[in-house]
Amino acid sequence: MSGFFSEKFNRLTPYTPGEQPKERTYIKLNTNESPFPPSPKAQKYASDAIAKTMLYSDPQCTKLRQALANQYGTTEDCVICGNGSDDILNFAFSAFCDTKTPAVFADVTYGFYPVFSEYNRVPYRIIPLKEDFSISPQEYYNAGGTVFIANPNAPTGIALTRDEIEEIIKNNENNVVVIDEAYVDFGAESCVPLIKKYKNLLITQTFSKSRSLAGARLGFGIADPSLINDLNTVRYSINPYNVNSITQAAGVGSLEDQKYTDENCEKIKKTRQKTAKRLKKLGFYVTDSCANFIFAKHETIPGGQIYLKLRQHGILVRHFDAPRIADFNRITVGDEEQMNALIKALAQITGRQI
Amino acid sequence: MSGFFSEKFNRLTPYTPGEQPKERTYIKLNTNESPFPPSPKAQKYASDAIAKTMLYSDPQCTKLRQALANQYGTTEDCVICGNGSDDILNFAFSAFCDTKTPAVFADVTYGFYPVFSEYNRVPYRIIPLKEDFSISPQEYYNAGGTVFIANPNAPTGIALTRDEIEEIIKNNENNVVVIDEAYVDFGAESCVPLIKKYKNLLITQTFSKSRSLAGARLGFGIADPSLINDLNTVRYSINPYNVNSITQAAGVGSLEDQKYTDENCEKIKKTRQKTAKRLKKLGFYVTDSCANFIFAKHETIPGGQIYLKLRQHGILVRHFDAPRIADFNRITVGDEEQMNALIKALAQITGRQI
Repeated sequence: MSGFFSEKFNRLTPYTPGEQPKERTYIKLNTNESPFPPSPKAQKYASDAIAKTMLYSDPQCTKLRQALANQYGTTEDCVICGNGSDDILNFAFSAFCDTKTPAVFADVTYGFYPVFSEYNRVPYRIIPLKEDFSISPQEYYNAGGTVFIANPNAPTGIALTRDEIEEIIKNNENNVVVIDEAYVDFGAESCVPLIKKYKNLLITQTFSKSRSLAGARLGFGIADPSLINDLNTVRYSINPYNVNSITQAAGVGSLEDQKYTDENCEKIKKTRQKTAKRLKKLGFYVTDSCANFIFAKHETIPGGQIYLKLRQHGILVRHFDAPRIADFNRITVGDEEQMNALIKALAQITGRQI
Repeated sequence: MSGFFSEKFNRLTPYTPGEQPKERTYIKLNTNESPFPPSPKAQKYASDAIAKTMLYSDPQCTKLRQALANQYGTTEDCVICGNGSDDILNFAFSAFCDTKTPAVFADVTYGFYPVFSEYNRVPYRIIPLKEDFSISPQEYYNAGGTVFIANPNAPTGIALTRDEIEEIIKNNENNVVVIDEAYVDFGAESCVPLIKKYKNLLITQTFSKSRSLAGARLGFGIADPSLINDLNTVRYSINPYNVNSITQAAGVGSLEDQKYTDENCEKIKKTRQKTAKRLKKLGFYVTDSCANFIFAKHETIPGGQIYLKLRQHGILVRHFDAPRIADFNRITVGDEEQMNALIKALAQITGRQI
C-alpha cells in the first residue's frame, strides 16, 4: 500500500479470482467456464465488428438490449448490460445500499458480495445457510436491507424455487431483492417472469457460463425500468462504455443462436448427473447442484488435500479455505473427456473403484 | 429515480457521452475517434482470440502489460490496464481521494472529473484556466489534494511541457499527481519518463484515440508499483476481469505495430495544421491544439449556432453549453475528405471563402 491510498479502504480485501495458470496445461475445472466454444454466430458477429473498433461502442447497447428483451420476453427499458454480471452487481451495491440500507446475503455464497460491500462502504448482514446448505426463505422476509441471493447458489449449486423467491420479494416491499442468476440456465427456475409484477426485483445474468463468453465479459440486469434507470445513473457516472463493441456483437450472435446454448446446457446437465453418481461411488457427498459445477466432499479425505492431489494430477478445481466449506471442492462440469480424467484421478487419490 | 436509489447520490449528475447517432449517416467529428481502422495486426490478434472466449480473460493482462512495459520503457509492475482510461481514472478518484483529500482540477477540462468526484463522494477544488485557456502551473503547487491534469487538455488541446509538469510534481510531494495523457500521441510531451523519479505520479493513456481502438475499450496507467498496487486493490474489488481477452489481444497487436500508429498520428497532425489554417481564414479563432481535435470559436457566429448548422449539413461536432466555452466547438481532426466536407460546410455557414 502506498502512503497515498485512502484510509477509507483500510479494511478492504479484494476478491481473489480463480487461478488462470500459465506454467502448464491443466484441465481447468476451477472457474466454471464452458467446455464448448462460443456459438459460431457469436464468433462471426464478433469477428465482423473488429474492423470498426476505431468508433466508440454504443453506450446504450441498443441492439444487444433489443435481442435480450426479445429472448427474455420483456422490453429494452427493462434491460441494462455490463462488463460481466459483476459490473451490474457492483452497480446494485452502490445504488441500492448505503449506511442506512445494509446488504443482506448468506454466509456461504458468491465471495464477491462482501467485497462489493466493503468497497462501497456499506454494512452487511449475514444470514447463515441451514445445516444442509439450503436457504431458509423465511429468514429473508423483511430483511431490512437489500437482499442478494445467488440462485442457484454458489458454490453449493442448490436452488430455491421461483415460488419461494416470490415470497421473499413479496415480503420485502421496502427493499430491493437482487437474484443473481449466473448459473440459472443449468437447471434452476429463472425469476425473470416476476419483474413485471414487482418493482423491487432485480435479476442479474451472465454470458460467461451457459453462453461460453467468459472472456468477452458480458452480463446484464433485468428489472422494472425505475431500477434500471438508477443503475444507469451509476453506470454513466463510472464508465458509459463498459461493454465494448465486439462483445456487444458477440452477445447478439449468441442470442440469435439460442438452440446452441440450450443444447450445451443439456449436455452439461447430463454430464453433471453422471459425474455426481460416479463421485458418490468414490465416497463423495455432493450437494444437489442445478449449476455447471458440483460441490463435493469426501467422506475421509480433507478438501484441501483433494485439491492439492488433483493439482498434481494436472486438474484444477476450486477450494475455498473458509468456515463450513473447507472440506468441499467446487468442480466445474466440463465435457465427457475432462470428467473421465477427473474420475480417473480421484479413483487413484481415494484408492477406490468406480 | 426509483424509491430505492441511495440518497447519497442525490447530487449525482452522470456524464453525457458524445452522441452516437443512429438515424442517419453523419460525418462524425464529435468524439475524437480516429478516421483510420485499427492496425491490421491488432485486428488479426483480436480475431484469433475470439474462438477461446469461453475461457476467462487473464485478469493480470500479462502479455499486454509486458508489451506496454516494452513500448514505454518500464516494467510490468508499473502498468495497470483498464476498460478505457476512464476506468483507471475512476480507480484513481476512488483510491487517492477522500473527504480529507479533495480532487483538484481545472474549470475547463475533461467533463468526467467532476462526475468521478461526485460518484466517489469526494470534494473537489476547481482552479480556473487563464484567460487564454492555458494552465498556470504554479497554481497547482502544494495543491492540498490529488491533482488531475489532462495534458494536452480537453477540450482546448493546449499542452504543458514536461518540465512544467515536473515542477508541479516536485511541488506536490504529499499529493498524487495524475496526468491524463489521452491525447498525448498527437504532439505533446509525455511524462512517462518521470515515473522512475516520482512516486506520486500516475500517467493514464488510452488506445481509443491514436490507436484506433475506442470501441474495444482499452486504457492503461503507468506509475510507481506502489500506486499501481493501490489501483489494483480497487480493481480487484470491483471487476478483476475489466479487460476482455479479445481486447487484450488487440492491444498487443497494436503495440507490435507501432509504426502504424506513428504514421497515423503524423497524418492527423498535418491535417490538423492545414484545417486550423483554413478555419482561421473563415473567421475562426482556434487554440493551439496538440490533440486530434481543434477547439474553434467564430468571430461573429455563436458556437451553438455553428453546431446546429453543421448538424444540418450532416456533420457532428461537440458543443459544450458551459461557461467560458459556449462559443466554441470541439472538432475532431478526421481524414482529408472529412475535413474538406467540414470546411465546405463552414464556408457556406459563415458566408466566406477560403
